[in-house]
Amino acid sequence: VLSDRPMVLNAVPSTHVRATFNAVRSTGALAAGAWAVSVSKGIENDSLKRMSEVISEAAPALAGRVAVLAGPSHAEEVARALPTAVVAAGPDGLREKLVDVFNADHLRVYTNPDFVGVELCGALKNVFAVACGISDGLGFGDNTKAALMTRGLNEMVRLGVSEGAQVITFLGLAGLGDLIVTCTSRHSRNRSLGEKLGQGKTTVQALAEMTMVAEGYPTSKSAQQLADRHKLDLPIISELYRILYEGKPARNAMRDLLSRPPVPEMMHIQSFIQQSPA
Amino acid sequence: VLSDRPMVLNAVPSTHVRATFNAVRSTGALAAGAWAVSVSKGIENDSLKRMSEVISEAAPALAGRVAVLAGPSHAEEVARALPTAVVAAGPDGLREKLVDVFNADHLRVYTNPDFVGVELCGALKNVFAVACGISDGLGFGDNTKAALMTRGLNEMVRLGVSEGAQVITFLGLAGLGDLIVTCTSRHSRNRSLGEKLGQGKTTVQALAEMTMVAEGYPTSKSAQQLADRHKLDLPIISELYRILYEGKPARNAMRDLLSRPPVPEMMHIQSFIQQSPA
Repeated sequence: VLSDRPMVLNAVPSTHVRATFNAVRSTGALAAGAWAVSVSKGIENDSLKRMSEVISEAAPALAGRVAVLAGPSHAEEVARALPTAVVAAGPDGLREKLVDVFNADHLRVYTNPDFVGVELCGALKNVFAVACGISDGLGFGDNTKAALMTRGLNEMVRLGVSEGAQVITFLGLAGLGDLIVTCTSRHSRNRSLGEKLGQGKTTVQALAEMTMVAEGYPTSKSAQQLADRHKLDLPIISELYRILYEGKPARNAMRDLLSRPPVPEMMHIQSFIQQSPA
Repeated sequence: VLSDRPMVLNAVPSTHVRATFNAVRSTGALAAGAWAVSVSKGIENDSLKRMSEVISEAAPALAGRVAVLAGPSHAEEVARALPTAVVAAGPDGLREKLVDVFNADHLRVYTNPDFVGVELCGALKNVFAVACGISDGLGFGDNTKAALMTRGLNEMVRLGVSEGAQVITFLGLAGLGDLIVTCTSRHSRNRSLGEKLGQGKTTVQALAEMTMVAEGYPTSKSAQQLADRHKLDLPIISELYRILYEGKPARNAMRDLLSRPPVPEMMHIQSFIQQSPA
């Protein structure tokens, strides 16, 4: 499939990206000068590498030649030509190539030079979609979900800036935009996984009922590992990790989240805004 | 009603706040040392004053003694004790009083010292809820709406920072949080007004069908006036103004929004982030 193709489009589940590109390398089929676009959304467990890094390591011919697309873009709607806006990130030159390839009347492709930020946004939003699904499954309302998304974005900013991302990216299509669509849409698989957990199912039961991959499951583990790396107290990520990996009942986790004392809203985020690269 | 009451809670539609507090002043009923909490969301047409400013002008006994509550808090859900998080803003001292009065198990009250930012967020989000309703009425999808909300927050930041708000506030409950709930909820009156416009009704027809006030209608005019004051090109606000006040068909306005050339995502916002007060 790949022979003589100038562009490789990667859309496999994040946990299979390394094996896939190991196989790509071993076939020797990549065309000279080929570049890759990745739409897989995740962070590798333990190594905590982003997908562009995993691809570059597994297939060194693509090192420095991987770009990503992110943003609120349910495939069902893109296929129906409903107006959609996404963001291209990656090395200089490749972003503009992505615009050339993908920009169309109904698919606006903005560019963003913050490669780390766009990739982290795409991965981390799935974690909060699971949390929003739990809120739905517990019977909570739109208010609760909006608060979870807002405080979730706050946690995303703190993790992202610690990894070198720009805070402004979290205000964009890959951050806020994709967070909104993933947390609110009936079609979101990650929200759906959370809903089952909120209804009282165990992680094993909920995962067994999924017919498609919910990236939020492995990414929650990576998010907790990233928080540990940077010694950050990120309560939504931590409670979700306890639910998914340690069997904590969702209702108890939500109760513990809500019993934290109220604080100045931006207490934890202010210093991260200030340390964000301009 | 007001005699000897230490706290006045204002929740009248924004276009009636000045007349209401003119009446309050003329009764002379305000207790000595009374303070006010406002949950009215709007910006006065022409004067472009925020509601706390309007109240302070109309009833000078309250000047410097007005605080606000904002954030994702549909009343129907607060009444059912579904978990809700809001933000208190206003003069030092009053924010903490608001926490004392309103914080409860199911209503977490955060504080934010950015008074201007919190008030502008609360008002401006209704403008974008009308825009999202139009998108729904035209039959567009979740992708379109998420893009409108994201680019809308971008316009809110540029207007807000121009008025002296902190960018960080737009990432919070009054900004992002309330934007999400107002733009996505089936219960939102502003979204509902937009939906009628998207379905091809005129402004007069759509407003006549509303049984409750849609603050987004007057606030769209104030938002356009604020953009003019600061010489800002804010495409969503401008197209919405043309629909609501100049009879431009919603479908044409959306087509014009979508035909703008793609640009670096943060091109217009970067300088505003840098000029935001810390």
